[in-house]
Amino acid sequence: MTGTTLRLDEIEELTRRALGHHGLGAGQAAAVARIVTAAEADECRSHGLYRLPGYVAALRSGRVAADAVPQVRRLTPGFVRVDGGGGFAPAAAEAGRPALMEAAAANGIAAMALTRCHHFSALWADVEPLAEAGFVSWAFVVGQCSVAPFGGATRLMGTNPIAFGWPRPGGHPFVFDFATSAAARGEVELKRLAGEALPPGWALGPDGAPTDDPARALAGALLPFGGHKGSALSMMVELIAAPLIGEATSRAVAGLDIHDGGPPPGGELFIAIDPKVVAPGSGWADAAERFFADASAQPGLRLPSERRYAARARTRRDGVAVPESLMEQIRVLLPQD
Amino acid sequence: MTGTTLRLDEIEELTRRALGHHGLGAGQAAAVARIVTAAEADECRSHGLYRLPGYVAALRSGRVAADAVPQVRRLTPGFVRVDGGGGFAPAAAEAGRPALMEAAAANGIAAMALTRCHHFSALWADVEPLAEAGFVSWAFVVGQCSVAPFGGATRLMGTNPIAFGWPRPGGHPFVFDFATSAAARGEVELKRLAGEALPPGWALGPDGAPTDDPARALAGALLPFGGHKGSALSMMVELIAAPLIGEATSRAVAGLDIHDGGPPPGGELFIAIDPKVVAPGSGWADAAERFFADASAQPGLRLPSERRYAARARTRRDGVAVPESLMEQIRVLLPQD
Repeated sequence: MTGTTLRLDEIEELTRRALGHHGLGAGQAAAVARIVTAAEADECRSHGLYRLPGYVAALRSGRVAADAVPQVRRLTPGFVRVDGGGGFAPAAAEAGRPALMEAAAANGIAAMALTRCHHFSALWADVEPLAEAGFVSWAFVVGQCSVAPFGGATRLMGTNPIAFGWPRPGGHPFVFDFATSAAARGEVELKRLAGEALPPGWALGPDGAPTDDPARALAGALLPFGGHKGSALSMMVELIAAPLIGEATSRAVAGLDIHDGGPPPGGELFIAIDPKVVAPGSGWADAAERFFADASAQPGLRLPSERRYAARARTRRDGVAVPESLMEQIRVLLPQD
Repeated sequence: MTGTTLRLDEIEELTRRALGHHGLGAGQAAAVARIVTAAEADECRSHGLYRLPGYVAALRSGRVAADAVPQVRRLTPGFVRVDGGGGFAPAAAEAGRPALMEAAAANGIAAMALTRCHHFSALWADVEPLAEAGFVSWAFVVGQCSVAPFGGATRLMGTNPIAFGWPRPGGHPFVFDFATSAAARGEVELKRLAGEALPPGWALGPDGAPTDDPARALAGALLPFGGHKGSALSMMVELIAAPLIGEATSRAVAGLDIHDGGPPPGGELFIAIDPKVVAPGSGWADAAERFFADASAQPGLRLPSERRYAARARTRRDGVAVPESLMEQIRVLLPQD
């Protein structure tokens, strides 16, 4: 595979330039560039430079407000609302984060609702800064409407990811982030391109019956992970990251799609707890470290996010190899001078 | 099967008398009796009268403080701590609930930590009253140490259930409650008694290899539901329902067990959000009802807890058939006059 090796700062600068060239305000462009770079750093390619054409498409079509400035409001001492103004979610998340952390530190627990923004990004990137700052934290977002409930036959929920972060003083936080569907749509698409059958439990065809055919799955519905339990969690995310914060469900959003390839609109719910307030003097961090040590003592066990942190160390040192096909798509998004 | 049919109020009175006869204070006994009755009403037998001998054993052995009076303290405007005083968890949960609801209504979001109490009960019974009062709510508790992490080979986590409740004005709330293990220990025990093999993915033997033999599973470890995703959730529950609130992990508790058959000690974390504060005027309840209507329009789909509510209507009308073998165990716990 031919390609170009880019340093992380080059990826960030490239992204910012492409978005600025298409009219995105400096604050929004910087926030998106940080997220794209974080994804490439951790080898989460599906949230990295691969998304840049979609971000630009959303600016060209006017789906996203290029000049949006997120408005942060403290609704109560423990609840923050951020109106994203129709811009990209990373800028809204960054704008609200200091208020969320302040509220959690004062109250023990606090929440933040992002509304009116557009999502393409990985949720771990939203909880990690909170966990690094010492907060136990969650993020929930409603994905594209593509998942049938357990026992059902047609699309009802989004892929509805859940992310959780736990602070580990002196080290990288414990972070997980997963879709509540058995597989992401992108994984099904890759199976289709490779001509491979789907594993059992991934999807239903348009007739509502289980299928191992990726094309029929893409025309039908994905299944939740873990049977009725994963299905219940997916319903929970649909409820708390949409109606609870006054945002649209995945099905309502699907009806509004303008098919420009840009990120779908939607809200996001954050919850943060400050263990220093909630369990002072209890040795909470040490007790958790004993738990992690017991886990890591089991041969073959890898804690969530350990692979990402290893990738991060590698890409900081060696840079990121960007495939030539992707570089070509990106070059045309830059100022041609 | 021979047995006795009892009305729900008879079950409650029977439970209260048995516990009072063994010295439990009136407030504690009433709270436990309400939980046992709620479980029988919903045909969740494993949390009903079946548990009464274990409750009494804990009083006889002194494991549980018979005269415990839960102490409720508002740590911050948004965080409630309840010291259970070594008593039973239902009394601690009831004692703290008004403060939790008040805090959530004032702040939008609030949390409550129960500490120093003993758990035998179903978590849905903890979130349902909060959801009925209009709060979106969660409960998390650490179960008996019996689950190996995904990719691991030996016990690390408890069965670590998660419960969630969503208020549905005018109707029963949407509630789910499930162990993050693939199956409960009781289900494995039933398979052993029936001489049946376990389904794949339930358990590991003492050698750490997958097993379908219930006896080897009980000597080994259960597996989380849903692969690495369920395993991550189980780890989350272990962290937030133990270290985060200054309580012991399942592994630490296992080392303290006195094997009297009584409920294990442990904490519980509640989170409650008031949608009236968080999304006022957004039509949050109607949007959720449209989601539930879309779900229920799918043939064959049953929402979580619908089976329990149907059972409740039936047992309120017809009472509960208690098997003779269980009635015999219960009669000896009552005053013999």
